[in-house]
Amino acid sequence: MVKVAVDAMGGDNAPSEIVKGAVEAVKERKDISVVLVGNQPIVEEELAKYQYPKEQIEIRHASEVILTEEPPVNAIRSKKDSSIVVSMKMVKAGEADAFVSAGSSGAILVGGQVIVGRNKGVERPPLAPLIPTEKGVSLLIDCGANVDARPSHLVQFAKMGSIYMEHVVGIKNPTVAIVNIGAEEEKGNALVKETFPLLKECKDINFIGSIEAREIPHGGADVVVCEAFVGNVILKLYEGVGATLLSKVKEGMMSSLRSKIGALLVKPALKATLKSFDASRYGGAPLLGLKGLVVKTHGNSTANEVRNSILQCVTFKEQAINEKIRESLAAETAVSGEAGHQEGTV
Amino acid sequence: MVKVAVDAMGGDNAPSEIVKGAVEAVKERKDISVVLVGNQPIVEEELAKYQYPKEQIEIRHASEVILTEEPPVNAIRSKKDSSIVVSMKMVKAGEADAFVSAGSSGAILVGGQVIVGRNKGVERPPLAPLIPTEKGVSLLIDCGANVDARPSHLVQFAKMGSIYMEHVVGIKNPTVAIVNIGAEEEKGNALVKETFPLLKECKDINFIGSIEAREIPHGGADVVVCEAFVGNVILKLYEGVGATLLSKVKEGMMSSLRSKIGALLVKPALKATLKSFDASRYGGAPLLGLKGLVVKTHGNSTANEVRNSILQCVTFKEQAINEKIRESLAAETAVSGEAGHQEGTV
Repeated sequence: MVKVAVDAMGGDNAPSEIVKGAVEAVKERKDISVVLVGNQPIVEEELAKYQYPKEQIEIRHASEVILTEEPPVNAIRSKKDSSIVVSMKMVKAGEADAFVSAGSSGAILVGGQVIVGRNKGVERPPLAPLIPTEKGVSLLIDCGANVDARPSHLVQFAKMGSIYMEHVVGIKNPTVAIVNIGAEEEKGNALVKETFPLLKECKDINFIGSIEAREIPHGGADVVVCEAFVGNVILKLYEGVGATLLSKVKEGMMSSLRSKIGALLVKPALKATLKSFDASRYGGAPLLGLKGLVVKTHGNSTANEVRNSILQCVTFKEQAINEKIRESLAAETAVSGEAGHQEGTV
Repeated sequence: MVKVAVDAMGGDNAPSEIVKGAVEAVKERKDISVVLVGNQPIVEEELAKYQYPKEQIEIRHASEVILTEEPPVNAIRSKKDSSIVVSMKMVKAGEADAFVSAGSSGAILVGGQVIVGRNKGVERPPLAPLIPTEKGVSLLIDCGANVDARPSHLVQFAKMGSIYMEHVVGIKNPTVAIVNIGAEEEKGNALVKETFPLLKECKDINFIGSIEAREIPHGGADVVVCEAFVGNVILKLYEGVGATLLSKVKEGMMSSLRSKIGALLVKPALKATLKSFDASRYGGAPLLGLKGLVVKTHGNSTANEVRNSILQCVTFKEQAINEKIRESLAAETAVSGEAGHQEGTV
């Protein structure tokens, strides 16, 4: 049995889509139980709309909500009875195996580090979403809020990402590449140039060198390593270019009577193909390297993405990903001073 | 009369598409003359295929070609009779107003700085392509090879980009934003945090704050400022996501008989709409801040892009962009030591 705490109050579509996603998840698998964390009367009212196996969903009351625009460190410190803090404490105490939230990214990243806590040896927990490619999916690691990374962080991202892709997504010996502005080893900024030889030396990953941004959507590598600023730009541009192009396609199809008739004929086939390029199919982004599993889903998540994010937690637990990460990084030495400092700030 | 030196040997489709683009450009405007620089017999043979006003095209022989994979600094130093070096010397000597090339980016960037030379006050010449957006085009500045920029570089990019958008593209009082991972001023990496207040203080630009990558395709700012590593990632991901999505759309349309019939009806309208999202319509990327105009077009440029890049040079000269950049940066003080060092390396 995998027990997942779900932030019923987080995200643009909370609580309705969150509760719906939770119901869909427990209906699909008998081995999942969900704790909906949030304002009890509100969550109860939502939940009353559905038929579902009662023993698989419970509600844990939390009186506060952390808003997206709140400074994360302050919010985690002051809102002790928020759905995020209550859920994270459940993970920390072992009352839940995982936590899924569509709420404030900043609060989730801070709370993950200061409440759930980092696994021994992990310098910085990366946020690692799966992104759609022509070949399937790639893991983009790191898209978190910790910018200005050091080479040692990127090496850990490569290791953690490889473990995730191999054991959660099921890709044997996943290829790893570092985002760069050219294919040659001597290209890049200072961070990439310092990191490249360290990745080359790593024996436990399948490092294939640099990847140019153009090759990411083609599926040029299974694990795409970068620091968080670049990762954030890649993730958001993926969404932006995709949305703009699809609206252009629709606009084109609606521009004449002839094309409108064509659009009716094309629509079902097109929908099926484009679905494979829809990020929400792949669930949320795990914050890797913590003592428990924390999954961040899109702020605008609908029930489908919430459902997928909850289901994802099962594989994560079954495959004992945290233990594998701990083992993989065990060979390494001390936790950096900076990381220790971050923990001290709250 | 605007005289444009064109690299007849550079790019994947040289010399055929380059020569064709030059012919199309001179047929369109009487006030352009083109010097095709490259291997004389080869260029002559290509040119013989076309009817065109003979007085508007001449050939300048250059016996060597710089290949994309050659280290740029070495190539510029050793291949004195290459089409790139010969053309750049023509610009330097005032024998040509501008140089257009689809050849090695690295060699063009190095040659631009060491042969054509920087305008007084310019610390680093940025490569600034126009990218298509929902609203029209935005200028992405910098996408060059000079990574690890300093805040003062980004401020100059913002000024040069504003001048270009206002006087070449014709957008009054263009909006300027810095690429960031959130909309708030306190977000960002060290470079962005240092640059943000400097941009806010600039009186001669219309700075509107941060832009998240998601908003770039929606046309969130006219001038999108970033350092070259991030700019390169944005430019190449734009191409990559676009190509992947369009191939998915085609695949979807070809997947059943019904959708194939629909595709025939939809095609003309779709083509027209998607054309507005085609980067090649907008010509090449100028390398701003040099003593002459240097324009880099895509390596895979076809005649249409070459033609547009040549036509672009007319507005650039007419509007006296270099003079405007010089005036705008005149208030500033010393040229940086690093930039001086770069000039000394060749």
